Amino acid sequence: MVDLTAIGERGRAASRRLRPARAELRNRALCAIAAALRKEQASILKANAEDVACAEKGGMSRAFLDRLSLTPQRIEEIAVAVEKVVSLPDPVGLVDGGRTLPNGLRLYKTKVPFGVVGMIYEARPNVTVDAAALCLKSANVCMLRGSKEAIRSNIALAGVMRAAIASVGLPEDCILLVGDTTREGARAMMTLRGYLDLLIPRGGAGLIRSVTENATVPVIETGVGNCHTYVDYNADLPMAVEILENAKASRPSVCNACETLLVHQEIAERFLPMAKAALDRYPVEWRGCARTQAILPGILPATEEDYAAEYDDYILACRVVDSFEEAVEHIARYSTGHSECIVTGDYAHSQAFTAEVDAAAVYVNASTRFTDGGCFGLGAEIGISTQKLHTRGPMGLEALTTDKYLLFGEGQVRR
Amino acid sequence: MVDLTAIGERGRAASRRLRPARAELRNRALCAIAAALRKEQASILKANAEDVACAEKGGMSRAFLDRLSLTPQRIEEIAVAVEKVVSLPDPVGLVDGGRTLPNGLRLYKTKVPFGVVGMIYEARPNVTVDAAALCLKSANVCMLRGSKEAIRSNIALAGVMRAAIASVGLPEDCILLVGDTTREGARAMMTLRGYLDLLIPRGGAGLIRSVTENATVPVIETGVGNCHTYVDYNADLPMAVEILENAKASRPSVCNACETLLVHQEIAERFLPMAKAALDRYPVEWRGCARTQAILPGILPATEEDYAAEYDDYILACRVVDSFEEAVEHIARYSTGHSECIVTGDYAHSQAFTAEVDAAAVYVNASTRFTDGGCFGLGAEIGISTQKLHTRGPMGLEALTTDKYLLFGEGQVRR
Repeated sequence: MVDLTAIGERGRAASRRLRPARAELRNRALCAIAAALRKEQASILKANAEDVACAEKGGMSRAFLDRLSLTPQRIEEIAVAVEKVVSLPDPVGLVDGGRTLPNGLRLYKTKVPFGVVGMIYEARPNVTVDAAALCLKSANVCMLRGSKEAIRSNIALAGVMRAAIASVGLPEDCILLVGDTTREGARAMMTLRGYLDLLIPRGGAGLIRSVTENATVPVIETGVGNCHTYVDYNADLPMAVEILENAKASRPSVCNACETLLVHQEIAERFLPMAKAALDRYPVEWRGCARTQAILPGILPATEEDYAAEYDDYILACRVVDSFEEAVEHIARYSTGHSECIVTGDYAHSQAFTAEVDAAAVYVNASTRFTDGGCFGLGAEIGISTQKLHTRGPMGLEALTTDKYLLFGEGQVRR
Repeated sequence: MVDLTAIGERGRAASRRLRPARAELRNRALCAIAAALRKEQASILKANAEDVACAEKGGMSRAFLDRLSLTPQRIEEIAVAVEKVVSLPDPVGLVDGGRTLPNGLRLYKTKVPFGVVGMIYEARPNVTVDAAALCLKSANVCMLRGSKEAIRSNIALAGVMRAAIASVGLPEDCILLVGDTTREGARAMMTLRGYLDLLIPRGGAGLIRSVTENATVPVIETGVGNCHTYVDYNADLPMAVEILENAKASRPSVCNACETLLVHQEIAERFLPMAKAALDRYPVEWRGCARTQAILPGILPATEEDYAAEYDDYILACRVVDSFEEAVEHIARYSTGHSECIVTGDYAHSQAFTAEVDAAAVYVNASTRFTDGGCFGLGAEIGISTQKLHTRGPMGLEALTTDKYLLFGEGQVRR
């Protein structure tokens, strides 16, 4: 059994010093991180090159290696992203409610940091810095656990960041890296009660499932997206093609990409060949219901598994539906509650779809690809919540805070 | 293994019909519930009498029997409480943010119900109605699981409420009662993923621990309160006595009652005898550190366990501290993050205490007993959250909603 209580104690101690730190100081620490990333570029790239060489030897995919690799330009982009966080408004200390109670007690509802926020994530060294910056900005200690393929990069990045924040007078333990990258290490984080105030897993469905099954600390589930695009009976078909193409093919690996196309039977014969022609410019594989197959001969059949799948790939499931109601019913059954879209010219359907579909983001006549903290104007994003507790959808800095009521009295007691 | 998926399916189906129901209809359903409780009083009292007789035979305590018992007057009070919920503002459909994005996409951040909310609670039949009313008001289906000693009362109450909401046209499955009151039944609820959008346990530390250890559905931990009252070096001593007396003795069984008194050494000799004299009017047992024992001879020693305990009883742990800092340190170590109080005349200490103490409610010169949805002006309360995820402190109707982003476009795609 891996024991992380020692690192947990360090996190708690650091949190007690970070929590009251002024935004000025937290911002100075972020600027110091950006500067240090640039200054220590050589040592970071060296560590990263070792990770990449090791991953190449291990036969990892081209896409994997691309996500893992750092370059001077990427380090510069990461540093710029940190500086952008400096410019965001301080989420801590916001007073978002309050009143003087009838007995004269003055009540203020304020926003405060969680304390210690854990993150478990994949082999993307940029997440190490992004997460640390957002946590620092919101006065949270972060406990980071990236995957083993990026461990040398993460050690280098965390080391540089820890030294940078120490240089402005904050405890270096405000940024903690869990060196144990085994499954047991992840399990130990999930059960670090009393030390982790929040755990955010970022990764595939397997990681999310493991966290929800094993975690005893509070968790925000992120990023599982089985998103639908429904083309209604009177949709503007060229618009629908453009939305589908963007939702499916502009970046199929991300969680806000479209996985299943639903088409009203009245326009299926006209729309499906148009959609197929547009997506044929990409390596998109179709899997359809019997009616889809009749219109688009030669495509594979779609199974229950296809409708339930988050492909994150150039694969599209397709089903022709009899009615608006059947489309909504299909979405209710298979949706993961991430992002759902209707393309329609019917006012009543636009209102009913947004009312009845239960998801973080519901679109009328626009691509689901917009579900993103940056697009939504949150300034930054630490993940996209697909659970309903705390917040749903893109999580910005505000999502890294909790409530605290302050009450000022002159001896009031409850009668 | 108890299988609750069938009741889960009924909840999901009911939720799809309840979610779009207008506030007018939900309020009509609440009025119908209040009327039906009055009309069916005889059958409810009969079922309750059987529960009480059974609990008496089982040798349950007087306090337990009191919480379990219904009378005509209590049923009237419960009905009035339901009518009060009708008058609260509708938490559903609130738009609490939004903007037109640069690309013309119109984004609205709205509040929507969770869907199906589970509650596991003790033998208090009034909670059955309270919880159902707050869930119905917020357009959530409730799945209720009271304890076995109240099962006949709960079956009667749920039956009356289900018939009442059916009479106004809502599905009776908007109010679900889990008949299985075994531990396995509770476990099955905790793991009812895909059916329960939120689970709120209300009960002792044992239940809360079991839920956090076993639950795979999202949970809000409630009501564990190890609350402190710290009397600072220059406190107004009569005010401090009154606050302590209220916090400890006005209702010791509740979670916002004071469990540990911390006293600055400079005033301990004057303050402790005054405090003891005031609390001697109640059956309060003191347990103190060595310095407390020197000032109040004859009291028991306080152990680590005492400082960590939530007595929920007429017992008070007491410690004399050297300084403000030592008091804050003690609270950081033992607090459950519920409600904490400083009694002081020192401005700097009032500000430092509210900034440094990490709890749902932090008081200056007032009793911790005010931590309550009613006192805070929330209108109603489904519990007091002692976790940081979602919300902290008293939970009103707003806490039973989650976020949903609506986006209206004219063909926007992401470039």
